Amino acid sequence: MMRDLRWSKTEKQIAKKAFEKAYEQECADLAKEIRSRAEKIKEPADLWHLKDFVNKRLREIENRYDYRYSVLILVFAGLIKDGWLKFDDLRGLSQEKIDRITTLSNPQ
Amino acid sequence: MMRDLRWSKTEKQIAKKAFEKAYEQECADLAKEIRSRAEKIKEPADLWHLKDFVNKRLREIENRYDYRYSVLILVFAGLIKDGWLKFDDLRGLSQEKIDRITTLSNPQ
Repeated sequence: MMRDLRWSKTEKQIAKKAFEKAYEQECADLAKEIRSRAEKIKEPADLWHLKDFVNKRLREIENRYDYRYSVLILVFAGLIKDGWLKFDDLRGLSQEKIDRITTLSNPQ
Repeated sequence: MMRDLRWSKTEKQIAKKAFEKAYEQECADLAKEIRSRAEKIKEPADLWHLKDFVNKRLREIENRYDYRYSVLILVFAGLIKDGWLKFDDLRGLSQEKIDRITTLSNPQ
């Protein structure tokens, strides 16, 4: 379904920039959350909770940030849905792409 | 080699207390180190470095703190060697145990 979309050079630049912005923001936000949780470590068990949290969130980030054009619409929809991107960041993409992202980012 | 040692009730109390003290201290020290590293996160890659560090250190701790009497002399020798225990913490153990811990905690 996504493989039929063509990405112009300009669109690729916009997509790359938006993708990187979201990635940087999600990572910065996670770093902040880790700092906050690290501050609150009171007993040994908290270390294992932190480890589990960090592993889980980094696995999510690894899975989420997939820059293949065949899946990028879906990736952007997820980023919009979870608040890491705004439609404003995607301005310049074709209306067809925006429409698909809109549809996919809306909870069913 | 260690299985022939007998542990009196008093020695078990001393051992348990020393073991827990070392565990608490090593965990507290790790928490401090994690806070320090979390503060220094500058870019996404640092998150993965922190993850690797936390996983490695917690694996080491899991492997180290084994409270079976059959391995406890070796565990104490390691804790002495790495600075998590002092001989003073083991005062009250039999001379034979202290001698074995001394031998095992000295670098060959």
